[in-house]
Amino acid sequence: MGKNEREDNGFDPENHNQEEEEKKKHLKEEELSVERIFENQEVPSWRKQLTVRAFVVSFVLSILFSVIVMKLNLTTGIIPSLNVSAGLLGFFFVKTWTKLLHKSGLLRQPFTRQENTVIQTCVVASSGIAFSGGFGSYLFAMSERIAKQSTDTLDFKKLSLGWIIGFLFIASFLGLFSVVPLRKIMIIDFRLTYPSGTATAHLINSFHTPQGAKLAKKKVRELGKFFTFSFLWGFFQWFYAAGDNCGFASFPSLGLKAFDNKFFFDFSATYVGVGMICPYIVNISVLLGGIISWGLMWPLIEDRKGDWYRADLDSGSFSGIQGYRVFIAIAMILGDGLYNFIKVLSRTLLGLFHQFRYKDVSSELPVADHSSDVSSQSQLSYDDKRRTQLFLKDQIPIMFAVGGYVAIAAISMATLPHIFHQLKWYYILVIYIFAPALAFCNAYGCGLTDWSLASTYGKLAIFTIGAWAGAAHGGVLAGLAACGVMMNIVSTASDLMQDFKTGYLTLASPRSMFVSQIIGTAMGCVISPCVFWLFYKAFDDLGQPESQYPSPYAVVYRNMVLLGVKGFSSLPKNCLLLCCVFFSAAILINLIKDLVGKKWGRFIPLPMAMAIPFYIGSYFAIDMCLGSLILFVWEKINKAKADALAPAVASGLICGDGIWTLPASILALAGVKPPICMKFLSRGNNAKVDAFLGS
Amino acid sequence: MGKNEREDNGFDPENHNQEEEEKKKHLKEEELSVERIFENQEVPSWRKQLTVRAFVVSFVLSILFSVIVMKLNLTTGIIPSLNVSAGLLGFFFVKTWTKLLHKSGLLRQPFTRQENTVIQTCVVASSGIAFSGGFGSYLFAMSERIAKQSTDTLDFKKLSLGWIIGFLFIASFLGLFSVVPLRKIMIIDFRLTYPSGTATAHLINSFHTPQGAKLAKKKVRELGKFFTFSFLWGFFQWFYAAGDNCGFASFPSLGLKAFDNKFFFDFSATYVGVGMICPYIVNISVLLGGIISWGLMWPLIEDRKGDWYRADLDSGSFSGIQGYRVFIAIAMILGDGLYNFIKVLSRTLLGLFHQFRYKDVSSELPVADHSSDVSSQSQLSYDDKRRTQLFLKDQIPIMFAVGGYVAIAAISMATLPHIFHQLKWYYILVIYIFAPALAFCNAYGCGLTDWSLASTYGKLAIFTIGAWAGAAHGGVLAGLAACGVMMNIVSTASDLMQDFKTGYLTLASPRSMFVSQIIGTAMGCVISPCVFWLFYKAFDDLGQPESQYPSPYAVVYRNMVLLGVKGFSSLPKNCLLLCCVFFSAAILINLIKDLVGKKWGRFIPLPMAMAIPFYIGSYFAIDMCLGSLILFVWEKINKAKADALAPAVASGLICGDGIWTLPASILALAGVKPPICMKFLSRGNNAKVDAFLGS
Repeated sequence: MGKNEREDNGFDPENHNQEEEEKKKHLKEEELSVERIFENQEVPSWRKQLTVRAFVVSFVLSILFSVIVMKLNLTTGIIPSLNVSAGLLGFFFVKTWTKLLHKSGLLRQPFTRQENTVIQTCVVASSGIAFSGGFGSYLFAMSERIAKQSTDTLDFKKLSLGWIIGFLFIASFLGLFSVVPLRKIMIIDFRLTYPSGTATAHLINSFHTPQGAKLAKKKVRELGKFFTFSFLWGFFQWFYAAGDNCGFASFPSLGLKAFDNKFFFDFSATYVGVGMICPYIVNISVLLGGIISWGLMWPLIEDRKGDWYRADLDSGSFSGIQGYRVFIAIAMILGDGLYNFIKVLSRTLLGLFHQFRYKDVSSELPVADHSSDVSSQSQLSYDDKRRTQLFLKDQIPIMFAVGGYVAIAAISMATLPHIFHQLKWYYILVIYIFAPALAFCNAYGCGLTDWSLASTYGKLAIFTIGAWAGAAHGGVLAGLAACGVMMNIVSTASDLMQDFKTGYLTLASPRSMFVSQIIGTAMGCVISPCVFWLFYKAFDDLGQPESQYPSPYAVVYRNMVLLGVKGFSSLPKNCLLLCCVFFSAAILINLIKDLVGKKWGRFIPLPMAMAIPFYIGSYFAIDMCLGSLILFVWEKINKAKADALAPAVASGLICGDGIWTLPASILALAGVKPPICMKFLSRGNNAKVDAFLGS
Repeated sequence: MGKNEREDNGFDPENHNQEEEEKKKHLKEEELSVERIFENQEVPSWRKQLTVRAFVVSFVLSILFSVIVMKLNLTTGIIPSLNVSAGLLGFFFVKTWTKLLHKSGLLRQPFTRQENTVIQTCVVASSGIAFSGGFGSYLFAMSERIAKQSTDTLDFKKLSLGWIIGFLFIASFLGLFSVVPLRKIMIIDFRLTYPSGTATAHLINSFHTPQGAKLAKKKVRELGKFFTFSFLWGFFQWFYAAGDNCGFASFPSLGLKAFDNKFFFDFSATYVGVGMICPYIVNISVLLGGIISWGLMWPLIEDRKGDWYRADLDSGSFSGIQGYRVFIAIAMILGDGLYNFIKVLSRTLLGLFHQFRYKDVSSELPVADHSSDVSSQSQLSYDDKRRTQLFLKDQIPIMFAVGGYVAIAAISMATLPHIFHQLKWYYILVIYIFAPALAFCNAYGCGLTDWSLASTYGKLAIFTIGAWAGAAHGGVLAGLAACGVMMNIVSTASDLMQDFKTGYLTLASPRSMFVSQIIGTAMGCVISPCVFWLFYKAFDDLGQPESQYPSPYAVVYRNMVLLGVKGFSSLPKNCLLLCCVFFSAAILINLIKDLVGKKWGRFIPLPMAMAIPFYIGSYFAIDMCLGSLILFVWEKINKAKADALAPAVASGLICGDGIWTLPASILALAGVKPPICMKFLSRGNNAKVDAFLGS
């Protein structure tokens, strides 16, 4: 009797040894399984997961996070992910609430991890609007204030609370409906990691772990330990970041030359954790992409400065090196994304065709049955089986999603041109035709590497729609509005897919999540504009470069669209050619990957993961590879322990750093700045600085 | 039958369980014991430990290290400890040699760890002269070149190779003879740690470990791992230290305010390792001293700037805050040192008296029998017993040491005034009367904390002899020459005591060590002046502030003596009073410690350890306390493992950093400078620097 057979048949009562082995195996699996620990806890129905208290807490947290995000929008323009904070604060609010009620004997319904996930989802959906609403970028870029700062006064639109709320209501819900059909593909079929979502789920699971589970306790302890470490590390780092290029985030750990090409370890606990959760091939792809782009291509292109592009351009101009970076990255992402999108689409259609033809209504997983990326059901662990089962229990009919999408698209086409006269209905139609594919790309990329490139897709919309409309026909406002529509869709797609991953891992019903997302989005569409309006009215110098709230990205977006309206001619030399090359390369790599089969295919890098550092830089690739390395060494030393505890450690690292963003943001809001700058100077510059400070 | 009794009686054959327990205990002890591993290796007689090849290698290494030390003397003035490098390079030289001979079949005598220690001792003795010879400090300060830089041209002495070699021969051997009687007190009776010496011994033992020993292998692996880490860490740190106040050594880990008061963690692997080897009470004492001095006293005294001392003095002046730091530290060290010296002396004399009176010639340990600091023989482990036995086997008669000391002192008194006319014979007599006490202090302090404060004692001699002679009677040269005599004695005392500790732990005979030290010192007295002469003749601008070899400390010593000749009046206000207070406090603390008995006494801090940060700063105290903390936590988690492996880990940390000084020095010699400066600026300064660099 072979080992494989035995595993299938269960234990043999005649063989004592075998029985014991089985028992051990079972015990081991039980120890490793999270869902077995929760086995005795009933999962409430999706309606019961949606409680009034959850939405009250969500509302309060939404306001808090919207203020934080808005403030960051208008000061530095860099927005951290708040998934983890939302999960944690949601837990503490409701836990305190239920504890108080429990003591007074009024508690009717216990606080479950599903409810926790619902809060988290709602808050993320709501505060996400504060970012994707473009108050620090495209929306503010339309205003007169920013137009005056730019070299043109071509077009501007007077800001008013009314049309902003209207615009957000139209644009924001569309993303939601495009996410629904992707949900199953990304989470169940592709089994993408979504590191932040996974980490949040681990955190929520750890909070709700029933007492008595031994390994669970160990995991919770491990998570807590690394959570604390990561939080304190973030805190420690803060002290040394008193300015640009200060602190550990700009530590030239591989030398100054490498640092200039964005090769350095930036001491980010988050990305080390992400690297531990992501598969090795993702981390290697990211590093490879970094080496190809920042190590080879950009330096080579920069050598052609003055020939391929004008030498007097500043480094952020899209007519210069930045143009290559952004558009080549987009081309590669689109190549990979479209390949996978078409692959999935064709298989889905084929499945549907079979379903209609043979009336095989039982086939619930048309994609999963064919996809090479999915593990077959028999290989799934107990956890995965249970999670998949619950995730697929409360279906959202695909026709509902498609119907919703089409309906909202129609409403948009009818109403948006009334808000922005420059945005013709056919522009919107084109955006809405391509949007699902791009939403797919972003959700896929985010699932692989944790980076959402929503603003990059927004830039694509600015450029294409701006160029299409042209300067004469209000291309500036059309481009910015198109950017808004696009960003809302793709940003929602990645954010909410992270939440779905969290929901999958905490057994929250997709239906309750969907409702929570709708409510959260609606909240956000009102809260965010109001918060912005508060800032706008309170600070007259909002958006002025030297003011307290410079809103740096608003001007950048304005300049981008000014370039865009000039069309493709404004792109630097050979940029379009390179884009085509990388677009084709991405498709080709995918084709090869599919053709050579799983055995060799798993050694072929993923173009999507490769493309992300093209634009952002390689530093996070180095963080992630370090995470991989730690995991690799750990697995070499003790495979069982690594398998059991690595997700907890990684989640601790991600969550600790994630929570630190909250006090860090509050410190920033309160105007408390770090006291010290850890600066890295070349020896020559250091001598100059010493002389300067000495005198 | 109680547990204690059983331990004394050995195992009981009638009781099976007991027998097994005994066996386990025996096995465990065997596992933990280093000397049991070496049990089958014969320890060669002391004559056989002194081989020709050892001295040939020593000679080559002495030249190498003398060049390195000389170069550092003349550039930065900061000399690292080279004990570890000497041990390691000695091993590799002789090992290669013996391997080659072994292959050709010509090897007559195998390479033993005792021989390794002999090389190490010889090289340390020899290259120590390059430092204690004062080529970068007192000796060079006598020259015309330095006198011209100073404000005076009072006195100078033309440098010439002849009298320098002569002076060194007279001054250097004295220290050797003063060390011999201290040897047993420090190593056997007080069981002082001598962290560097201990680490070197662990390294040498690990090189020579016979194959097959399991725990030894684990220890060697642990040592190797941390050695590599510490070495690479030193290497990594180097890149960021492109100037003063650059790099990890000036990382304000506790904030800028704390950094200004020398409270920071300087990321030194050496001192973390030292902290792991030193007893907790030493580390706590050092930290306490740091808090009292840099945390309280110096800031309070600095508040009285302009009242207690002139406000326009630069920070290094002995008439200012630096005067308090140095002299209060000296007062406290002298208080503690003299107390212990007199305690030991009286007990020794008492012992000798008993010995003569009752003809009790068998009593070989007159001090150990009475001292409260020593563990009684019965409590000693196998290792300690064997080491003590071998350490005491080859005695050096105390009368030989005393005789040698008196003879050399007489020669000095006769000859030194011929070299320095200003140095009267009675000055020398006074120095030689007090020198053994000070040598005792330095060896004792170094044994506790690994810091040798030779230059501090030198400063004491400068000040006292300078003041005694007075400016009119050539006090400048007299003071500098006295400094030389003093430094040679106390520096030798601590350096060679470290070697004796190494010898103790590697079973090298004290007699062979002594011979090796004599030979090494003789080598050094010739090599060092020659190397200096090479530099002196090759570089005309040697000692000029802006030159390649500024020799910064030569001017400092010159200024010190100029201050000294003005006498006590040049000390800042209340300095003498504070010195008296701390001198008495040190004696009082010791008295209390002795009176309350061992139970409570072990909680009373050691004044000697407290005094060292007074002058140097608290940063190394923080390193050491971190080492303590690591050890403490480790012991909490797994006491057995911590006890077995902590010395190996600590040695690895110390040795790795120690060896890194070698390539670092070579890089400095080759003129390769670190490329990056990691600078720490306050937010305000950072803004200024950014504006400066931007413009």
